[in-house]
Amino acid sequence: MTFDPRCKALLTRLAAVHDLEMAQALSFWDQNTYMPEAGAPARGRQQATLAALSHQQMVSPELVGELERLERQVEDFLPGSPERALLRLTRRRVDRALRLPAPFVAELSAHLSAIFSAWAAARPADDFSRVAGLLERTLEYSRRYASYFPEAAHPADPLIDEADEGMTVGRLRPLFAELRAGLLPLIAALDPGQPDPLLARAFPIAEQLSFGQEISACFGFDFKRGRQDLAPHPFMIRFSSGDVRITTRVNPTDFSDALYSTLHETGHALYELGVGPAYEGTPLGGGVSAGVHESQSRLWENLVGRGRAFSSYLHRRLRQAFPRQLEDVDLERFYRAVNWAHPSLIRTEADELTYNLHVILRFDLEVEMLEGRLAVRDLPEAWRARYQSDLGLCPQTDRDGVLQDVHWFSGLIGGAFQGYTLGNLMSVAFYRAALAAHPEIPAELAEGRCAALHGWLREQVYQHGGRYTADELLLRATGAPLSVGPYLDYLGAKFGASPGDRMRM
Amino acid sequence: MTFDPRCKALLTRLAAVHDLEMAQALSFWDQNTYMPEAGAPARGRQQATLAALSHQQMVSPELVGELERLERQVEDFLPGSPERALLRLTRRRVDRALRLPAPFVAELSAHLSAIFSAWAAARPADDFSRVAGLLERTLEYSRRYASYFPEAAHPADPLIDEADEGMTVGRLRPLFAELRAGLLPLIAALDPGQPDPLLARAFPIAEQLSFGQEISACFGFDFKRGRQDLAPHPFMIRFSSGDVRITTRVNPTDFSDALYSTLHETGHALYELGVGPAYEGTPLGGGVSAGVHESQSRLWENLVGRGRAFSSYLHRRLRQAFPRQLEDVDLERFYRAVNWAHPSLIRTEADELTYNLHVILRFDLEVEMLEGRLAVRDLPEAWRARYQSDLGLCPQTDRDGVLQDVHWFSGLIGGAFQGYTLGNLMSVAFYRAALAAHPEIPAELAEGRCAALHGWLREQVYQHGGRYTADELLLRATGAPLSVGPYLDYLGAKFGASPGDRMRM
Repeated sequence: MTFDPRCKALLTRLAAVHDLEMAQALSFWDQNTYMPEAGAPARGRQQATLAALSHQQMVSPELVGELERLERQVEDFLPGSPERALLRLTRRRVDRALRLPAPFVAELSAHLSAIFSAWAAARPADDFSRVAGLLERTLEYSRRYASYFPEAAHPADPLIDEADEGMTVGRLRPLFAELRAGLLPLIAALDPGQPDPLLARAFPIAEQLSFGQEISACFGFDFKRGRQDLAPHPFMIRFSSGDVRITTRVNPTDFSDALYSTLHETGHALYELGVGPAYEGTPLGGGVSAGVHESQSRLWENLVGRGRAFSSYLHRRLRQAFPRQLEDVDLERFYRAVNWAHPSLIRTEADELTYNLHVILRFDLEVEMLEGRLAVRDLPEAWRARYQSDLGLCPQTDRDGVLQDVHWFSGLIGGAFQGYTLGNLMSVAFYRAALAAHPEIPAELAEGRCAALHGWLREQVYQHGGRYTADELLLRATGAPLSVGPYLDYLGAKFGASPGDRMRM
Repeated sequence: MTFDPRCKALLTRLAAVHDLEMAQALSFWDQNTYMPEAGAPARGRQQATLAALSHQQMVSPELVGELERLERQVEDFLPGSPERALLRLTRRRVDRALRLPAPFVAELSAHLSAIFSAWAAARPADDFSRVAGLLERTLEYSRRYASYFPEAAHPADPLIDEADEGMTVGRLRPLFAELRAGLLPLIAALDPGQPDPLLARAFPIAEQLSFGQEISACFGFDFKRGRQDLAPHPFMIRFSSGDVRITTRVNPTDFSDALYSTLHETGHALYELGVGPAYEGTPLGGGVSAGVHESQSRLWENLVGRGRAFSSYLHRRLRQAFPRQLEDVDLERFYRAVNWAHPSLIRTEADELTYNLHVILRFDLEVEMLEGRLAVRDLPEAWRARYQSDLGLCPQTDRDGVLQDVHWFSGLIGGAFQGYTLGNLMSVAFYRAALAAHPEIPAELAEGRCAALHGWLREQVYQHGGRYTADELLLRATGAPLSVGPYLDYLGAKFGASPGDRMRM
C-alpha cells in the first residue's frame, strides 16, 4: 500500500521534517546512553537548532501550500483512507506549529536540555533545590504553551491532547475518579506481607541483560532491526522502521527490574516495528498516542510477562538460565514474587494494582500546577502529602519523591502521565479481544510462543500507525469504547479477595 | 579571548550550520558503532537531508550578507587576528558551497551513505563487484565536483585543497618523488626477518581495551570529555570541545593493533580537545588540515608510542598488566617487535618505514582515475600491480587490496590520502621543535609523563585551531617550511643500516 501520487510533494516535505526530528531523536538517545557529561552544553544548543529548523520547515509556505492544495481535493480520498489521515494529521501538526512562535520553540528546546542535565545530577544528589528554579521556568513555558491555545477549556488540555488526542481534563477526571474508587477497596483489602527474597539473589549483570534480550526476542523483537543499551531511565526510541532501540537499567539486588523493564520497552518497540513501512517519514509512521503506546508496553510486560500462562514458560527458562539461583523456586512462588502487590514509592517499580494511584496523583499535581494552585517550591511537600494520603507511605528523600521521574525534567508539565493509565485500561481491552479471536493464545504463551498474539496485535493495532485515532482504533479492534470496568474486573480477579488468576489471563 | 562583538551575527549563523554538521557527525558515529544494519537506508536519507540543509544555510542570503558586511570592514581587524581568520575561512567555505549546486550536495550525501553500507558488506565478503558500480558513480561525482572549480590546474586540486589547503598535485608530486627516492634504498636494505610471535600471545579483548585507554589517558586524553567505542574502522570524531570520541578495533592475535590504533586516534583527539574553546562552532573550531591532524596522530602513535623513551615506560606497564604473557620479554625485544619494518599489504598496519609507499600509491591511483587514465573496473588489478612493483607483494584478495580502506567508499576520490604522508613529514618537524624547546621530554616520557610535550603542542599547535594555515602553523612552530629531509633523517636513524635509535627520539 502506498499513498496516492498526488500526495508526493507533501510527503517529500514531511520526510525532510521527519529527518530533522530523527536527528533530534538520535541526539536524545546518545545523550541518555553514551554522551560524556561535558558534551551536554553543546548538545543542548544543537538540539535547539534542530528543533527550530524542524519547526520552521513544518510551517514553511511550501509545506503549508502543498497541504492546502490537497485539502481542497480532500473529497477525492475515501473516508478512513491513509490519505485522509495524512491530511488530518499534517493539519494537526501544522496548526500546532503555527501557533508556537519559532523563538519559543528554540528557547524551550534549549531549556529542556539544560533542565535534563541538571536533573541527571540533582537526582543522585537528592537535591531538589538544584532544579527548582529551572522547573519553575518549565511551568512558565507550559503555561505559555497553553496560552497559544486560548480556546482550550483547561490549560492542561492542549498538552494532554498533544500526547493523547481527544483527551481532556474534563474527560479524564471522571474516568480516573471511577478507577480510583474501584482501586481503593482492592488495595485496602491487600495483605501485602514481605517481598520474596528470591528476587535479591545474585544475578550477574551481563546475564540479566542477555536473558532479558532472549525474552524480548521471544516476544518478537527483531534485534536486526534494533538494539538494547543501558540508560539511567529505560525508554524506547524509533529512528526508522529498521532501527528501533530500547534501553534498560540493571539492579544487582532485584533481577525483576531489568527483566520487566526490558519487556515493557519491548512492547513499545513491537508497536513501532509493526507500523506499516509505507507510513515511514509521515505523521502516520509511529504509534498513535501515548495511551495506545502504553497499552502495548503494559500488555507485554504485565498481561503476558506477569500473566499465568507466559510465567510458566518464563519460570522454566529462568531456572535453566540460573539453575543455582532458582533451583528451589517453584512456579507458584515465582509467580507470586513477580506479582507481589503492595503500596510503594517508585512508579516504575509499582505492581499492577497500585500503579495507577502513582499516575493519578501526578496527573492531579500537574493540573494543580497549571491552574496556579500549586507552586513549584511547594511541590516536594505536596508530593509527600499525597503519597501519604493515597498510599500510606511518605518518601524520605526527593530522589524517591518528586525527582524520581524524568518527565517534568525533560518535557513540559501537563500531559506527561495520563497515557500510562489510559494504557493500562486499553491493555486489558486489547488483550481480551485478542483472546476472543484466538483462544489458543494462553496455551501458546505457556510454551513461549507469542506469534498468535503478536500477529493479532500487528493486524489490529500496530500496522495502522496513526491512521485511526486512539478512540477509533480501540473501537475497531475491541468493539467497545474506553471504559474502566473490564480493567477493574481483571485486577479484581488477579489481586482480589481470593487471589489467583481465575481469568487465566 | 573572544571574537570582536561585530562578528556576533555571523557567528550565530555559523553556529547553526555547525549544529547541523554535528548532527551529521553524530549520525556517522552511530552508523559506525551501534546502528543495526537495517537502519542504513533511512539513515542515508536523513544524512542527505542534513547535508542539504547545512549547505542551504551556508549559502543563505543572511549568512552571506553578514560575511560581506564584515569583509568591507576587514581592515579594522589586525592581520593574523582570529577575526581575519574567521572571515577568510568563512569566505572559503561559502565560496565552495556556492559552487556546489544544492541537488548535487544532497545526491552525493545519499550516494556516499549507500556506498558505505555496500562496502561494509562487500569487504568481509571480498567482493569488489558489489561496489564497483557505486564506485564508478563516486568517480563521476568526484569529476563533477572538480568541474565546479574550472580554474584548477588539475582535477584533483580542489579535492586536495579541501583537505589540505594550499596543496596541489603540482606541489605534492615532487615532494612525494623526493620522499620515495629516499625511502626505496632504506627499504631495499631491510632484512625484515620474521614477526616476533610475542605479539600473537593471548591478550583478552576487554583487557586490551582498558590498557589502551590507560595509555590514552596517560597521553592526556580526558575521558570526561570523550570516550572510546568499537568500530570496524578506527576513527576520531569531534562533537564539541566537551565531547571528542575515538574508536578502535581489537585483534585477538595481535595486541599491538588495538593499542597503537588507540594511540593514533588519541593523537587526533588531543588536537581537537586542545583547540581554543572560543572557536567552538566556528570554522576555526577544529584541526586546520588533514596533514596537521595526521601529524598529531602519527606523532603520538609513532614518535612517542613507538619511540625509545616512552617504550621503556610502556614496556614496564605492559609487563605489570600482562605478567603472564610478557614475563620473558625484555625492553629490547618489545621495542623491536613493535617497530618491525617489512613490506606488507595493509596500510593501517604498516610500519613507519614502508607506510608512505602505501599512501603514495593510493595518491597516484586517485590522480590516474581523475585524469581518466584508470577505469574503476581496472582498479583492483592496478592496485595489485602497484603493490607488486612498489612493495614486492601482491594481495591475494580485494579485501586486503582495493577494499581495505574506507576512504573511497565513504567520500570522494581525490584528496583522501595525501594528508597521511604530509602528516608524517610534519610529525617529525613538530617533535624536533618540541625537543629543542624542552630537552627534558624524552626523560619524562620514559617515566610515562607527557605533560611537557602535550603542553608545547597545545601551545604551538592545538589551541590555534584554524587560525593559521597549515603552512603558517608549521613555520611558526618549527621555524622551517615543509620539507622531506628531516623526516628521512629520522627514518634513516631509526631503521637504517645500523638499526637502533641514535637520535633518541
